[in-house]
Parts: sequence; structure tokens; C-alpha cells
Amino acid sequence: PMRVTTSTHAYPIHFEADAGVWIADAIAATVSGRRIAIITDENVAGLHVNAVRTALEATNRSVRVHVVPAGETSKSLGQASRLYDALLVQELDRRDAVVAIGGGVVGDLAGFVASTFLRGIDFIQVPTTTLSCIDSSVGGKTGINTPRGKNLVGTFYPPKLVCIAGSHLKTLGTQEHAAGVAESIKVAACLDMELFTQLASTMDRIMNFDMDALLPMLRRSVALKAHVVSEDEKEQGLRAVLNFGHTIGHAIERGHNYAILHGEAVALGMIAEAEWADSEGISNGIARALTGICASAGLPTEWRNHRVDVAALRLDKKRAGMSVTMPVVTTLGQFEFKTVPISAVSEFVSMRSTG
Amino acid sequence: PMRVTTSTHAYPIHFEADAGVWIADAIAATVSGRRIAIITDENVAGLHVNAVRTALEATNRSVRVHVVPAGETSKSLGQASRLYDALLVQELDRRDAVVAIGGGVVGDLAGFVASTFLRGIDFIQVPTTTLSCIDSSVGGKTGINTPRGKNLVGTFYPPKLVCIAGSHLKTLGTQEHAAGVAESIKVAACLDMELFTQLASTMDRIMNFDMDALLPMLRRSVALKAHVVSEDEKEQGLRAVLNFGHTIGHAIERGHNYAILHGEAVALGMIAEAEWADSEGISNGIARALTGICASAGLPTEWRNHRVDVAALRLDKKRAGMSVTMPVVTTLGQFEFKTVPISAVSEFVSMRSTG
Repeated sequence: PMRVTTSTHAYPIHFEADAGVWIADAIAATVSGRRIAIITDENVAGLHVNAVRTALEATNRSVRVHVVPAGETSKSLGQASRLYDALLVQELDRRDAVVAIGGGVVGDLAGFVASTFLRGIDFIQVPTTTLSCIDSSVGGKTGINTPRGKNLVGTFYPPKLVCIAGSHLKTLGTQEHAAGVAESIKVAACLDMELFTQLASTMDRIMNFDMDALLPMLRRSVALKAHVVSEDEKEQGLRAVLNFGHTIGHAIERGHNYAILHGEAVALGMIAEAEWADSEGISNGIARALTGICASAGLPTEWRNHRVDVAALRLDKKRAGMSVTMPVVTTLGQFEFKTVPISAVSEFVSMRSTG
Repeated sequence: PMRVTTSTHAYPIHFEADAGVWIADAIAATVSGRRIAIITDENVAGLHVNAVRTALEATNRSVRVHVVPAGETSKSLGQASRLYDALLVQELDRRDAVVAIGGGVVGDLAGFVASTFLRGIDFIQVPTTTLSCIDSSVGGKTGINTPRGKNLVGTFYPPKLVCIAGSHLKTLGTQEHAAGVAESIKVAACLDMELFTQLASTMDRIMNFDMDALLPMLRRSVALKAHVVSEDEKEQGLRAVLNFGHTIGHAIERGHNYAILHGEAVALGMIAEAEWADSEGISNGIARALTGICASAGLPTEWRNHRVDVAALRLDKKRAGMSVTMPVVTTLGQFEFKTVPISAVSEFVSMRSTG
């Protein structure tokens, strides 16, 4: 397995084409306690959970499956509270573990609960979406939404183990798969011209779940993110590169009341932020290159037609006073941080958007 | 100031006889951001908060005071949720800070909120009770209660700074002051015969808030706890010595529905646990010594007359399977860990208690 090492933690990430008992075996080898709480959502519960559960029970573990409603609304303190109660009923102690099987919502919620239950118990991720493989299996961010915004509550809490099975991703629709690919485009655009070229030349096969194209893309994307995070665990420097597309992307998510896929909002946000940088003379032609590769994945590209909640920019976690520091792609595969008045970004978005 | 150093963090603890602008100056020197959120409770708000607030404003900080109801019920997820919202309204960003002014409830709640707001912002403690000076200013534990028990949700999150003013403690009633002294008795009994003797010989002056007796007791107690915690930040070894009296003490708190002071429950728990150890032949005369010193502070000693929620022992965070590992005082100033079946403790308590 790939090994992710940060200043204080190290953990393995396994990549396999097919799901199988290897997942339960890896979990059993990691958790010392006898009880496992699987947290999943209604969609994933019927697809990928029973196989893991049965294989875990074969290792003599006591397993309970806790199912939350699918969708972003489950990332709430109320849902966390119900899970705390379920874990207490299951009598989990500090040696036991929470296993998240699902996408980013399940991972963020389960990670928050694991990080705060009994002041922290072991947390394992089985990401079943392309997005969560790339975006949330590395970095240790957990998150809960409040009525005022996304991920305004959370912790830094790395998993003990991540198990990625390519076959889990096959149950995704094309649109959701593309939303995950957007995160790979993001790290490629900022950090890795070679991955950008690889994405451009194999996009058809990636979109068809051809494992010979998909797994190398996942590995490379995860390795890039792991490199960034290991350099900067607490998000005070390099790690902020991962926010490319997220400043305006979050405002687009808010403008849609989160009724848009995160990766789609990031794709739109990347193009909008690149257009701003192109218009400022910081870069040249980046918006066009991003529009092309996003379109080849079937991602939306016309951010002007989308509602943007400009007020949400002021609540951005990346904000410091009246400015925001954004990563800007200067040439494909390279970036710089720019500190910009929030008003400048607001005005650009307000003037150009017709959504 | 005393400097507390753990594996990953170091922070200063200031001890002064009188409150004054030194508190605001120390906070201002620590916090880079312009916004300060003071979290306090209804009792403390009218006593010690305005002076700190005014002095902070004189350092050009924007200060808001967030008042929660006094008492253990404020350590709830619902209250945390209201505070998140208040901090968002105040537009705190990652450079800003939460300052807790109050006792353990305020510190545990404010620390939890600070540790999870925007994935963690700076946290400063101004403990205003004897208990919170000794018990919660060192160790970095935050906590929230659930309907199933105390501190079942929380984080490890050390403060950036602790400011202890002896004069803040003078507004405590004798009973609450004694409940704090119980924590000093606890660390003395387990770790430091000299402090135990010092407590015995100066208890009258300590109870009368004579700073020449009180401050040395506070310093020594805090230094002991800092030593324990720095040896073992994540509570997997030595730190568990601080749980002396807490196994049965928590069950007594539950038996009273928390309508008993924590330190009183700990005093009763220490005596009960010592009595169990004496009865098992592990120690000799420890229960009598603890009864004597607790009585001299005006603490309750007759645990048999108190309601003990035996079922709560099974939900204890220190539990691992069907056993609990408890620190046991073998001779004054020394202890050993004993792993005991939960049923043995339950039976001892059930047979002896008449509460």
C-alpha cells in the first residue's frame, strides 16, 4: 500500500481494482478492539456494506451498521449527536473503531464523530466515490455544516487506514464520477503538468472505469495530495493550494443551496478563478485549458449561468480580515498564492455572472 | 510564568495574587487576530468579565462576551451549536481566539467549541474556580455531556495560555472552594507526600484564601498535573493516575443527576476507592487518612449515604471490555494501576452503599 506520512501520523492507503475480503482483513489487522461501528448512507448501505460486514464478522468482530440519510444535510450536529448515541448503545470503547463506507459526506461526518467520541477513537475510511478517494482520504479534515455555511465546524483527524477498491466506484453515475475527476484536474493544474497530460489523453477510459487508466490516476492524485499535506499538516501554507476553485466554488454551492455536486462547483470555481487571473494578467489561457479538460469529462463549464452567493465569500474559512488568500494557476502545473481583497473577487463575480 | 510542555505543545501558565490588566496584556501578546470571543457563564459574567473585556478593548481588540447558563447542563451539543453561531455572527477567523472565563464547565465547553470551530482556533483559559485552576488548566481535555453520560464527547486541545488570579477564587463559596481543594488532595495522595503534608498543615489558611498558602498549593498541584500530562499526553499511561476517585466518583455524580459538585463526588470516590483497596489488602489506612484531610476542608466523606449509579460504571470511558483500570493509592504519595472487573467494583459499591 501507499504510505501517507505527516508530521505526527503515518497510515497506509490500499488501492485494488476489486473489493473483497482484503478490506476486512486490513481493518482487522488495524483495530485492536472487538467492536466496529460502520457508518454509511442509504445509497451505499445496499451496495457495498454487507460484504465488508460479513467479512469483518468472520474475523470475530462485533459489527453494527449505522445508516444516515444520503446527502449533505447529514453533515449536521444533530446527526453527529444521533451517532454518538448509537455508538454508546453499541458500547464502543477507546480500543474500538469507526469505519466510514461511502463518499465525502459519510467520511466527513464519521470522521468528526470518531475524532470527538470519547475524545477520539480509531477511524478507518473506505471511500466509495471518486471524489472521496482523491479529496478526503488524505488530509485528515473532518467537517460538519452549520446553517451559516459548509464545514464551519470540524477537526483535523487522520484515519488509521484507507481502503480504495476501484470496483466500488463503478456504481457511481457518470455525473458523480466526473465530479470526482474534477479534483484530479485541480491538483494536476496546480502541481503536475504530467498528470494534466495523462488526464487529457486517457479521459475517455477514465470515464469508462477502465481500471488500467483509473487506478493510476487515483494513485497519482492521492500521492500529490499526500505530498502537499505532509508538507503542511495544519493548512497554514502549501496545503492551501488545494483550495484552488474553492473560494468561488463554495459561493456557487451556497448559491445552489448545495443542490450541486461539490466537484461540479469546484470545476466551475476553477474556471471562474482562472478567468479572473487571466483577466488580471496573472495568467494566460488557463481558463480555456481548464474549460477544455472539464468539458471532456462532461463537467459543467459555464459558471456565468450559475447562481453565486457572493455574501458567502465573507464567511470563507480562508478569509483573514477583509482579504482572502487564493492559489492561482500561473501556468499549467504551477501556481502562486495571491492575497486579494474579498471585494475584488465579489465584484468580478457579480459583474460577470448572470446566474 | 510556569511553562507547560507536552510532546507537541508548550504554553505558559501565569499565577498572580490579584487580577488586573496583566491578564489582557498576556492575551493580547498571544493572539494575532483582532477579534476575541469571551465565553463565560451567568455567575461569572457579573464578577470578573468586564475588567478583562475593558482592558482587552484598550489593546484595540474587538471583544464580544457570550454568556451561557451556569451549571453542567451547558456542556451540551445544543449549547456548542449556539456558540458556533455566535462566533460566526462575530465573524471570527482562524487568527482570532476564544477566551474562557469561568470554571470547569465554561472551560470544557469553550475548549470544545474552540477546538472544532473552523477546525480549531486559539484557546485561552482564565479559570476562576479552584477546581478549574488545578483540574482543567492543564491537560487539554475538552468535554461535552450526552444524555448517556458526562464528557462522552470531547477533544484533546491544549490552551495557548492560562491566566490564574488568586483574587478570582475569592468570590467562591467555601463549599465550591473545598471541591477544588479535593483535586489537590487527589494528586497529593497519589504522587506527592510533601504536598499532602503541606495541605494538612495549611488547610485553614487555604480555606481562608490566604494567598501565601493558596498560591503555593495551586502552583504545586498544577506542576504535578503538568508533569503527569507531559509524560503522557494522550492518557494512555501515567495520566490515568488523575482518574483516582473518578471511577466511583462519576457513578456518584450520575446517582445525583450531577446535582453534586464534581470535587465533592471525587472526594467521596477517593474515599470509596481507598476503602475498597484497604478491604482488598492492597493498602492500609488510606481511607482513614483521606477521610481526615477531606473533613478538614469541609468536604463530604460519608459516601455510603450517597446514591451511586452502578450502571454508569459500564459506560465509563476508562473501561476496556468488562474491566476497568484504576489508580490505587498504595501508601500516601504513591500509587499503582489495578485492572479490576467492573463487576467487582459494582458489587463492592452495591453492598456497602446505603444511599
